[in-house]
Formats: sequence, C-alpha cells, structure tokens
Amino acid sequence: MGDVKPTRGNDGGGEFFAPVLQPANREGLRYRLYRLMFHHESRSERNFDLALIAIIVASVLVVLLDSDPEVKARWHFQLYLAEWVFTLLFALEYSLRIWVVREPLRYARSFLGSVDLLAILPTFLSLLFPASASLTVVRILRLLRIFRILKLVKYSDEAGLLTHALIRSRRKILIFVLTLLTIAVIFGALMYVVEGPQHGFVSIPTGMYWAVVTMATVGYGDLSPATGLGRFLTSMLIIIGYSIIVVPTGIYTAELARTMRSRGRVQLRCPQCSLGEHDDDAWFCRKCGEALPHVDNNA
Amino acid sequence: MGDVKPTRGNDGGGEFFAPVLQPANREGLRYRLYRLMFHHESRSERNFDLALIAIIVASVLVVLLDSDPEVKARWHFQLYLAEWVFTLLFALEYSLRIWVVREPLRYARSFLGSVDLLAILPTFLSLLFPASASLTVVRILRLLRIFRILKLVKYSDEAGLLTHALIRSRRKILIFVLTLLTIAVIFGALMYVVEGPQHGFVSIPTGMYWAVVTMATVGYGDLSPATGLGRFLTSMLIIIGYSIIVVPTGIYTAELARTMRSRGRVQLRCPQCSLGEHDDDAWFCRKCGEALPHVDNNA
Amino acid sequence: MGDVKPTRGNDGGGEFFAPVLQPANREGLRYRLYRLMFHHESRSERNFDLALIAIIVASVLVVLLDSDPEVKARWHFQLYLAEWVFTLLFALEYSLRIWVVREPLRYARSFLGSVDLLAILPTFLSLLFPASASLTVVRILRLLRIFRILKLVKYSDEAGLLTHALIRSRRKILIFVLTLLTIAVIFGALMYVVEGPQHGFVSIPTGMYWAVVTMATVGYGDLSPATGLGRFLTSMLIIIGYSIIVVPTGIYTAELARTMRSRGRVQLRCPQCSLGEHDDDAWFCRKCGEALPHVDNNA
Amino acid sequence: MGDVKPTRGNDGGGEFFAPVLQPANREGLRYRLYRLMFHHESRSERNFDLALIAIIVASVLVVLLDSDPEVKARWHFQLYLAEWVFTLLFALEYSLRIWVVREPLRYARSFLGSVDLLAILPTFLSLLFPASASLTVVRILRLLRIFRILKLVKYSDEAGLLTHALIRSRRKILIFVLTLLTIAVIFGALMYVVEGPQHGFVSIPTGMYWAVVTMATVGYGDLSPATGLGRFLTSMLIIIGYSIIVVPTGIYTAELARTMRSRGRVQLRCPQCSLGEHDDDAWFCRKCGEALPHVDNNA
Repeated sequence: MGDVKPTRGNDGGGEFFAPVLQPANREGLRYRLYRLMFHHESRSERNFDLALIAIIVASVLVVLLDSDPEVKARWHFQLYLAEWVFTLLFALEYSLRIWVVREPLRYARSFLGSVDLLAILPTFLSLLFPASASLTVVRILRLLRIFRILKLVKYSDEAGLLTHALIRSRRKILIFVLTLLTIAVIFGALMYVVEGPQHGFVSIPTGMYWAVVTMATVGYGDLSPATGLGRFLTSMLIIIGYSIIVVPTGIYTAELARTMRSRGRVQLRCPQCSLGEHDDDAWFCRKCGEALPHVDNNA
Repeated sequence: MGDVKPTRGNDGGGEFFAPVLQPANREGLRYRLYRLMFHHESRSERNFDLALIAIIVASVLVVLLDSDPEVKARWHFQLYLAEWVFTLLFALEYSLRIWVVREPLRYARSFLGSVDLLAILPTFLSLLFPASASLTVVRILRLLRIFRILKLVKYSDEAGLLTHALIRSRRKILIFVLTLLTIAVIFGALMYVVEGPQHGFVSIPTGMYWAVVTMATVGYGDLSPATGLGRFLTSMLIIIGYSIIVVPTGIYTAELARTMRSRGRVQLRCPQCSLGEHDDDAWFCRKCGEALPHVDNNA
Repeated sequence: MGDVKPTRGNDGGGEFFAPVLQPANREGLRYRLYRLMFHHESRSERNFDLALIAIIVASVLVVLLDSDPEVKARWHFQLYLAEWVFTLLFALEYSLRIWVVREPLRYARSFLGSVDLLAILPTFLSLLFPASASLTVVRILRLLRIFRILKLVKYSDEAGLLTHALIRSRRKILIFVLTLLTIAVIFGALMYVVEGPQHGFVSIPTGMYWAVVTMATVGYGDLSPATGLGRFLTSMLIIIGYSIIVVPTGIYTAELARTMRSRGRVQLRCPQCSLGEHDDDAWFCRKCGEALPHVDNNA
Repeated sequence: MGDVKPTRGNDGGGEFFAPVLQPANREGLRYRLYRLMFHHESRSERNFDLALIAIIVASVLVVLLDSDPEVKARWHFQLYLAEWVFTLLFALEYSLRIWVVREPLRYARSFLGSVDLLAILPTFLSLLFPASASLTVVRILRLLRIFRILKLVKYSDEAGLLTHALIRSRRKILIFVLTLLTIAVIFGALMYVVEGPQHGFVSIPTGMYWAVVTMATVGYGDLSPATGLGRFLTSMLIIIGYSIIVVPTGIYTAELARTMRSRGRVQLRCPQCSLGEHDDDAWFCRKCGEALPHVDNNA
C-alpha cells in the first residue's frame, strides 16, 4: 500500500492489479482522452467514470435478463441489440485505452486490462459458440474498477488488512485443504462401497462431491445415506468435518486479531542500531537501550 | 450512549430511534396521558406499559393464528373481529400520542413512531388488497419498545457494543458483500451454461440464487448439480465460498475483541517507569508504585 | 468452583446440580450403602460406579434397539423384559438412595435426583400411554453422573470456563434471540404472502419455521421458494441471517478470550487497602501504591 | 518440533509419525537404496521422491476412474491392469524399504509404514472380496509423505501450532461431544414419538442421525418434520444446536490466539522497572533502557 503514489493523479493499486500508466504524449486529443480514462479528478473525468459504471451495470443486467426464458421470448431482439451495442462500446473503449497509453502491453497484461478484454470476447465468440454468450457476465469484474475510481485508499487499506491476514495464513490453509481432500477421497470411497449406486453414489468422485457438500454443511440432499451404516458414517463425517471446518475460522480470526494488534507497533528507526519497529509504548530501544526519538501519541 | 439523559424521565435512546419528546402542555388530562404514554416510572405508567406489551403480543398471535387454514376455517370471524379491535386500539393510541406531544412530526418521523403507524396501516389496506392483512405482523417491531420501557440502559449498552463493532467493520463488510455478489454472478452464469434449464438452472438470476444458497451453506437442494462438471464447479464454489464466508466472522470477532479490550484500560504514561497502559480505576502504577497523574473519569 | 469441598469425600458440584448429602446414620448396612452410592474412593465404591454406568448405557441401548422395526419384530419380548428389569433396578436404587441420606427431599430436588426419578417414570407411564416408552431415553442424562464419579475437577473447571463465558454473554444473547425472532416473524409473513400455500407456505408459523431453518443455514429444502420474488427475498434473508448468525460466534469467542486472559489476574489481597485482584506482573497495588506481598511466579 | 534432527539427513517428524531409521549397512546397493528411499537431498533422491508422488497420484486416479460406470464399461481391463501394476510396484517398494533399514519392525509400526502396507492390501483382498477394491484409495494417505519429502519444517511447525491448540482444547472438546450426543439422543427420541415412522423417523437411531444432521446445520432434507409440534421442536433444536456448535469455534479460536500470542514473548522481569514481559529478541528493557538479565534462547 505504501508504494501507491496518489499524487501522480493516476490509478492507485499494485503493479499487477493496475500499473501506473504514462500517457503516450502530453497534449492534444490523445492526451485529453488519456486524462478522461485514467484520471478521476476533474468534473468531466468523474462524469466519465460514473457513466462507465452505469454502462457496466446495464450491460450485466442485459445478460441476466436475456437468460430468463419469459423475458427472452418477448424482448430477445432488443436485448441482443443492446448487448452488441455495449460490446462495441467496450471494444471502442479498449482500443482507445490501448491507443492513449505509452506502454499498451503493460496495460493489456495488468489485471484490469485483462478483464477489459474478457468483457468483449464472449460476445464475439458467441457467433461461433452460442452458449458462450452467457459468459459476458465476467463484465461484472469490470466493477472492481470502482475501487480505483473512488480513490478508496481507505478501502484498499481494509482490503490490504484482510488480504494480509489471508497471506499470513496461507501455509495453514494449504495444510487444511490437503486434509479436506484426503478425507473427501476416503469417505467418498467408503460411501461408494457402503451405499452403492442404488442410493445415488454411482462413483467415487460422486462420493467425493457428496463428502465436500456434507463437510461444508451445505447438505443439498440430492445424495443422502439410506442405510444404517451409511448414516453412522455420515454422522462421523459431519463431526470430523465440523472439527476441521472450524480450523480456518480460528486461523483467520487469530491472524486478523494479530494483524490488527500489530498496528500497536510503530515504524520508528532507532538512531543507534537502526532497529525499525518498536512497541508504541516503548521509550528505549529493546536492542541497544538507546532512548528513542519520540512522537507525541496524543497528537 | 453517553448522551442518554435518563433524568429527563423520558424515553432514552438516540434522536432517530426515539427522540426525547416534550409534552404539549404541563397540566390537565393531556399531560396525564403524556406521562402515561411516554414515561415508565409510577405504578400506573408501568401498568400501561405492561398492558401495551400484552396487547402487542396478542395482536401478533391473532395474525399468526388467522393464517393457519384449520384455525381460520373455524375461528376466522372471531379473529377478524379481534384484529379490527386491536387495529382501532392502536389507531386510538397513535392519535393520542400525536395529540399529547409538543412536536407531533418529530414523534411521527422517529423510528418507533413510524413503526406505530405501520402497525395500523395494513389492516386498513386489507380492505383494498386482502393479501396485505398478513403484513400486520410488522406489529412485532413494536415490541422493540420493550428496550425503552424496561429502561434497559445495560441492554442498550450491550447493543451499543455489538453495533459499535458492526460500524467499525462496515467497510470490510461492504468489500465482502461486493465480492460475494461478483462470485454469485459468475458462478450463476457458469452453472446456467454447464447445467442448463433441464436441471433447473433456467436463468442466470436463478443460478445466482443457487450460488447464494450454496455459499451461505444453506443448500436447500431444490437446485443441485447433476453433471460431473457441474459437481466439480460446485465443489470449487463451496471451497471458495467457505473461505470467503469465514471472513466476516473473523472481522466481527476481532473487532469485538478489540472493542471489549479497549474498555477498562486507559492510555496513561507513568511519570517514573513509563508504563503506558493502566486499569481505568488505578491511582498508582502497578509497576513502580508511583502516583499516577489523574484524569477525571466522571467528566 | 471454589466452594467445592472435595475433602468431604462426597459428590462435588453446586447445591443445585448435586448437593453435599449427609448419611442418615454413621454405621450399619445403611451407612455402607450410603458410602457405596455417594462416595467414589475405595475399590468397591468405584466398582459400583462402573457397574452403574454400564447399566445406564445398556438400558439406553435397549430403548434404542427396541425402536428399530426389524429388531423389534424379532426381539421385542426380550427387550421389553430387559427394560422392565432395568426400570426395577433403577427404582430399587432410587429407593435406597432416598433411604440412606439424612435429607431425602434435598436429594430428590437436586438436578441428579430429578433425573434419577425421570429415568424410572416413563416405563411405568407406558402402561397407560404406550408411546411414552421411548421417553425412557432421558436415562442418558444419568450419564452426567460420570463427571462426579471421575472426580473430574479439571473437567468441571473447563465446563465452568465455558459456562462462565456463556453467562457473561447472556444479555447479548437475549438481544440476539429477540432479533432473530422478529426477523423470523416478518420474513415468515412475507413468504406466506409472496409464495402462498401452493408452494408449501401454508401459514405464517410455517413461514417462521422456514425462516429459522434458513437463517441457521440448515436448509432442509422441504420448503423452498419457487417464485422470482420469493428467491430474491430468500437471498436477502440469507445475507441478513448470516450477518446476524455471525454475532453469537463473535460474542462467545471474544468473551472466552477475555475469560481466558483474565486468568492472568492473581487473587492477592493488598495489605493496606484490601483490593483483591491484581495483574500477575504487578509489584505495587494500583489503588494505594503499597508494595504487594509477592508469590514466586516461577515456582 | 524441537527434537527434529534435520542434520541427520533423514526423515524429520516424531517417533510415531516417521521414526529416524538407520540403514542396515553403510555401503553397497542396499545402502544406495536406503539413501534413495529415506533421504531427500541429492538430485537422484529428489527425482525418486517426485516419481513416487506422481505414481501415488496416478494410482489413486485409476481407482477413482474405475469406479465410474461409463469409464469402467470402456476401460475396465486397462484400469484393472494398471491397478495391479501399481500394487506390485508398491509391494516391491515396501519390501525394499523393509530390507534396507536396520530395524524393519520400527518402520512397519510407524504411521507412514502402516499406510504403506495399507496401500497394498486392498488389491489383494479384492481377489476374495471384490468390493474392497475401492478401499485402495487409502493410498492417498501416502501423499502425507510430501510433508517429509519437501522437508517442510515450516509446515510441520504450522501443523504443530494447529495441533497444539487442538490438544490444549481436548477436554473442552470432550465435554462438547458428550453434550452433543446427549442432545441427539433426547431429540431423536422426541421426534420418533412426535413425528413417527409415517414421516420417516422409523427408529430412535434414525432420529439421532437426523438430530446430528440438523445440529451441524447440514440439513439434507431426507428427513424433515411435517407436523406443527415437530417443526416447533426442530426450531428449538436448531437454536440450541447453534448455541452449542458455536462453542468449539470459540474454544479453538481463543486457544489459537493464545498460542500465537505466547510465542515471541518472554516472561522476564526487568531489574529496574519490573516490566515483566519482553520480546524474545530484546536485550534492553523497552521502558527504562536497563540491560535485561539474559537467557540463552538457543539453548
């Protein structure tokens, strides 16, 4: 978060999510378009952003509506037309974005750049594979743009906190997922043997699907044990599964609490030994005993 | 909470929830009614409150009973009559409340005032739209009045603690809901494409409903995947969904723990040993015995 | 926990759960029976306890087995006989317990005394109302006796910790349950209006049952929304419900963490001002500055 | 964790999980095989490990595929053959492992040694009992070997943290499971009496299965209450169950937070200002700058 340079007037965020892109040149229509598309400060720039968000939401709604059989029967042509209008608008916007930045490839390879492309492709693909038309809903990912537009530094900060806790928990979560998978394979096979195809457990992968659905306490009921032994095994799986599913909540909460608490730490460099992080109530360096240059906490 | 003025003998609570209302005049029947309806101290005032609660509960029970086909078949007339009696009673009470306070509009626009009105309207509306009769159950919201009647300052305090933690988590929760919505749209569309109408996924909004039901681990089973790919996607969604659904629990718990911890501790530096955090009832440093420079806690 | 007197050689636990009962006299068969039934120290006393546990488990198993149609068809007579044998044994044991203690009423009114009676009644009642035979499973509550038999002071301590956290959370939990009930009534009525009897929502109480099943993420699927509006309301309820169901987890975890942390407190009376509880790293009283008489933490 | 001796170049982990095994002799083919199978350092040793993991994954996939009716119809012979090839490979590997170590029994009795044997048996047993063929999926447990192969000391450390918190919670969890079982028996019997066989509650054990499925919020819906009283009892069970199911999450989170917090802090009293808790890398008191009396952390 610290390397975000909001003074650049450019999109904040990391290199991957949305790199700080330079304009291709510094004057003329091309530069004005660059400002309009990549800055969010003046009135016109903000109006462009709001219009963009409205169009994204509208384009997603069109896809949702067009999937409904009743709506489709009556309004398909209009919705089909609207979808193409939106697609062409997005395609135009994408081309312009490519044109106005100095390093088009860097934009195209960034996360938001990829999403911008993904938002256009499915409609064209649907000319070849009609089913892919529904995939245009990936356009909703374009809404992530909101975070940048609103200059939600605070939101990024919160997201950073959540993500930081997730990253610190990653090893624990990997162990957790491996354990879950192992249990799913074993109980899937047990149920396949015990209940068998006549009760819907037609294969071990089906049993694994059932085990995941059960352990996560979703429990659709499309597959459920019918024999006494199967029900006993299910009760075992539920209790084991519950014990295990409790783990990530615990991990995440504890990590989050720790991350939030470590904010009680101050970034303060000891003048003698250069140790950079101290408790916010420390008056002396815990390494070399040097008095710390103090900031007023009450300010 | 600190701005609640219980000495006024009036309803505690914030401006929005229940503003401190003044009587229209200070004597006569109108003032006696004001005391009866807005104060909760003397024996008669308390009896009025208890009777009101009993009537509210009875009126909700009447609506519940009248919705049951068997009960309705036998007792509909009696229940219908009772509902009108309750409605007219509440209408009378509402008119009186309007009459006795100095600023009727402030009462009418407060949360409890609006609920008082909502408790009357559906019965009258049911003369035009019979189905709306069931909506009289909003009367149950009138029970929130209990919190004020019992002068549950402690309860308000607890509610305040819970709400405070919620408010401090609001940004994190907004990010969370946006993420959830995005995942629901994408998986809803995927299942619509993969499973299709023949397995119940008749539209993308239906798929979104299914995705929400799945991610929250409700899993009715009215819609469930039938193909191998659909089941694989479902397992993915469950694992992703579970990871994400863990987040608000973690956020809320950590915030609550922080809010609870920061109560009862004071940031106060001991002049001798520099210990920076003391119990809020401490007069001497627990480390070195030095007298603490004191702030007046009652201020 | 502190008022448990294990030196009495009698059942530990609170007055309500299991009061410390005195023998009717101090010698003879009556006293030997008293020792056998209420003490758990010598070899014979322990053997009696183990036999009792075995009989309790066996008697519950008999009821479970007798409820299974196939087992019942073949072994009903044997199981019926066994049930009566167990019942008469328990009745004999109950009479003896009443006989050997000095204050039979105090025993009869304690929690374990009531359970001992409840374990006998259903079998006798089943002569009048056959269905009540299944209620003999309340015998399983007699297993709570295990905690006392094994003198599980440590377990009682853990249970005490869990219960203490629950008690400290009781106000928050009451607010929580009231909120839940209010939401259930309102959404139950909404679904009754929107979905109506043709989709199974035959009355508002049925809708409330559905709302509870949904909010707790159980989701049987015996009732599920079939209309678009109903599904939208369901998604709302799930998200609201989830936000609310997160609250008790947060409350309980935070309370538990606080209770566990407050064990970092030492019961230590200040010689000057008598303040009784200090941080375990305190050297001076935080109230009067007096040096504290210190215990060696490393011991 | 502290007794892991990575300098031995042997498998880390506890005595039970995977004891440190010595080679039968120190030269020749037998020693080279020992290094290949029990060490993970040189290029060839690492290649052996990777090949082993690939074969394990492939062998589990074969069993999963062979359980699918469509795949089985077409490829059964090939899969059957592959399964025997894998089984013979694993049998050969097991024999070699037994041969090359100095204490074959210690290897055979360790956790990983038992799994290695279990991975072979089902295929041979399937010659007698065809159904047991599916149980070869226990081979997936062989993947636990990954943790050792990758010398994931850090991962072991994380697993240790998770396990440590579990062990510290074990008494609380035992109380929790007993409570759950008691509630399941009582509600199982109640529903058997109230709903009866006509709504699927054919026996008390069936009711217990339903109670577990309900309390854990899985809710398949294969059994669900149909009467008003049954639905009321279900709502009670859900609320009771939810209150109880919250407990292990709370316990585990609080324990985990405590375990994580107590790392990195040392109980050490500053000789000058008496501050009692310091970071484990502190040399000077962060409060008064006094040098701390030091313990050797590396000891």
